[in-house]
Amino acid sequence: MQPITRIRSWMEEHKEEAITLLQQMVQCESTQGNEEEVQQIVANKLSAIGFDVDVWDIGGDELLEHPYFYSPRQSFKGSPNVAGRLKGKGGGKSILLNGHVDVVPAGDTKQWTYPPYSGHIINGRLYGRGATDMKGGNVSLLFALEALHALQIPLKGDVVFHSVVEEESGGAGTLAAILRGYTADAAIIPEPSHMKIFPIQQGSKWFRLHIKGRAAHGGTRYHGVSAIEKSTIVLSHVAALEEKRNQRITEPLFQHIPIPIPINIGKIQGGDWPSSVADLVTMEGRLGVMPGETVDQAEKELEHWMAGLGEKDEWFKEHPVEVEWFGARWLPGSIDSDHPLLGLLKEQYEAVMKQPPKVEAAPWGTDGGLLSQAAGIPIIVFGPGTTELAHFPNESIDIDHVIEAAEIIAGTMVEWCEAAE
Amino acid sequence: MQPITRIRSWMEEHKEEAITLLQQMVQCESTQGNEEEVQQIVANKLSAIGFDVDVWDIGGDELLEHPYFYSPRQSFKGSPNVAGRLKGKGGGKSILLNGHVDVVPAGDTKQWTYPPYSGHIINGRLYGRGATDMKGGNVSLLFALEALHALQIPLKGDVVFHSVVEEESGGAGTLAAILRGYTADAAIIPEPSHMKIFPIQQGSKWFRLHIKGRAAHGGTRYHGVSAIEKSTIVLSHVAALEEKRNQRITEPLFQHIPIPIPINIGKIQGGDWPSSVADLVTMEGRLGVMPGETVDQAEKELEHWMAGLGEKDEWFKEHPVEVEWFGARWLPGSIDSDHPLLGLLKEQYEAVMKQPPKVEAAPWGTDGGLLSQAAGIPIIVFGPGTTELAHFPNESIDIDHVIEAAEIIAGTMVEWCEAAE
Repeated sequence: MQPITRIRSWMEEHKEEAITLLQQMVQCESTQGNEEEVQQIVANKLSAIGFDVDVWDIGGDELLEHPYFYSPRQSFKGSPNVAGRLKGKGGGKSILLNGHVDVVPAGDTKQWTYPPYSGHIINGRLYGRGATDMKGGNVSLLFALEALHALQIPLKGDVVFHSVVEEESGGAGTLAAILRGYTADAAIIPEPSHMKIFPIQQGSKWFRLHIKGRAAHGGTRYHGVSAIEKSTIVLSHVAALEEKRNQRITEPLFQHIPIPIPINIGKIQGGDWPSSVADLVTMEGRLGVMPGETVDQAEKELEHWMAGLGEKDEWFKEHPVEVEWFGARWLPGSIDSDHPLLGLLKEQYEAVMKQPPKVEAAPWGTDGGLLSQAAGIPIIVFGPGTTELAHFPNESIDIDHVIEAAEIIAGTMVEWCEAAE
Repeated sequence: MQPITRIRSWMEEHKEEAITLLQQMVQCESTQGNEEEVQQIVANKLSAIGFDVDVWDIGGDELLEHPYFYSPRQSFKGSPNVAGRLKGKGGGKSILLNGHVDVVPAGDTKQWTYPPYSGHIINGRLYGRGATDMKGGNVSLLFALEALHALQIPLKGDVVFHSVVEEESGGAGTLAAILRGYTADAAIIPEPSHMKIFPIQQGSKWFRLHIKGRAAHGGTRYHGVSAIEKSTIVLSHVAALEEKRNQRITEPLFQHIPIPIPINIGKIQGGDWPSSVADLVTMEGRLGVMPGETVDQAEKELEHWMAGLGEKDEWFKEHPVEVEWFGARWLPGSIDSDHPLLGLLKEQYEAVMKQPPKVEAAPWGTDGGLLSQAAGIPIIVFGPGTTELAHFPNESIDIDHVIEAAEIIAGTMVEWCEAAE
């Protein structure tokens, strides 16, 4: 019997174990600072499968002073990272499997039908914070490894595992795992792509724009300059930059996407009195970053563009819009379109799902950007779960997709790392 | 010697008394709820001049249920109103002198060079919260009355005095004085017009606009509808209404004013995350109201105009902008351009200041709107002090203007109410 067929049979028989594992992991309230319990479950599972397991508190100068380090905190007590290596028999290519265990807070629990950390199952879906982002994907990885272990299918290449913290806050966990030497020839991250294959992922950076005006009484508003009125000019200027940046894109994976790398203004606030002319408006937005450009290049382009506002409106010559960069940075990630891992993953998808995969560009960044840019590791995002449900009340995941993703990933590992016997 | 000449001489001799009175009044911290002390000073002064003085706590159903009543509070303990009448000898026209004693809070006292209730005098200016808005004007009234009393110049017509609370919060003090019967044939309010004569005063009403969008992730912003983007359409729609309303204005007093009745959007707030598409933007603004139209007519026009947004953009057909009215209402006030009181005031101005007065439309409302609309009393705003300094740190007033205004008002009363001898 082919390994692929054996994997399928084994998974069908042991499906309940995967569901139980996912339930246990979802029941851990692993918000920032509280990841220890779920990491212990992952570490135990990896040990049982034969991994050399490494559990450590991230930190130290090398991490904190790294140019790609970003986190709102400096101490990571209570948030251990887990990584491990399953040595191959030799002569094969290595693979890195990366998943994060930190989850965003549940928010208003009254908006949840079941308690947010229940792991309740109904109609083939498992509910709870982190189910889709991304404990479902983590279970796909662990279930794939468990199948290979149980079926005694050793691989030639090494399997490296990252079970990281801090993905939701800037990627310090993945960066720490890279710095500790846990790298490989290529990587898969099962973030919720809704079973689509994302060979490239858009990066992004947050920014703040400060638009100045001149205060006056509203009854004589012609004596002032409204920062709110000036904001409409800034908004159309930002839209023009978005158009310009997107016109440059030739990558075929973006061809069906209306705006490959959007610039989104998500927040606006200005003025403090209805009958005064507003002298300041602040807007916050997200600048999409193309794989192939650096975040730094994108930042410079926005800054330069905003400095050109004076040509549209004299006011900005003496009162330039101030650009401030803040919050996390998500690096773009990618794998070459002819990379063999990509071909193998597509084949395995088709074998399991009996239809060709959807291959697209991810509209958001993951820790894959760090793997690409800080470690030069080609990276594919492919996983169960849907982005639309992430971070919302009643987050849930289709259990069948968790199992199917496990089967596809197990098959891909067998081909990429090569079965040793 | 003419009464006018005698008034001037007396005022020059007694100028220091006016300054001391203004200092005493400014030293009373008469913010909302704390007007008792300053009202006692006014009441004593009126009694000494020969007025029948009435001090009372405003309130009661007639006031609270009046269509023009507005106040953030329902109880006015600690905030007595003062009114009084100086009976004339008979056969003359009566005049109403109205001033408010409530002041807005001092704000950040660190921004004041002298303590905000010091009454400090430097270079001919008296400093303190309320100096310009409008205790300086109140002293002009009292000093004018004192001169007539000291010089024994009795008038044929009655003089009615309002020393009111609540002007800064909606005019409940003036409304209460009207309801208590303190009315007259015409009125002067010495709000800080910077010695200009304002025969008409713009009214205003605050509003809130709620602009809806549809949320989405910023990386796929094309799946959402940005309330921030839609706001720019709303802003230009509001600007078009402002233009339309101002084109209708034929009043000559507005001819040199760039925008006679502005619609000012003073505050904007929307969205809550840089990388989400904003699903709600709220804007707050001030709708200028023309003398000759009611606030209700102006409100209806704005509501009807916003309902027409669907013709500019389909989105608004299913997601109309919601218009909310909030905060205080300032009624427009006016006096006919050929009203004899206006002619007399201009003559007296020219006699005292040796130059023709500037006659303009006020860009803001006062309690004069209540006098016009609730009591049918023609009203002129004319006083020392400048709006630009009102409500700001280091509020101050030119003392000479206080005295000059007193002289002009005294002369006007002599002509309007007629000297009895």
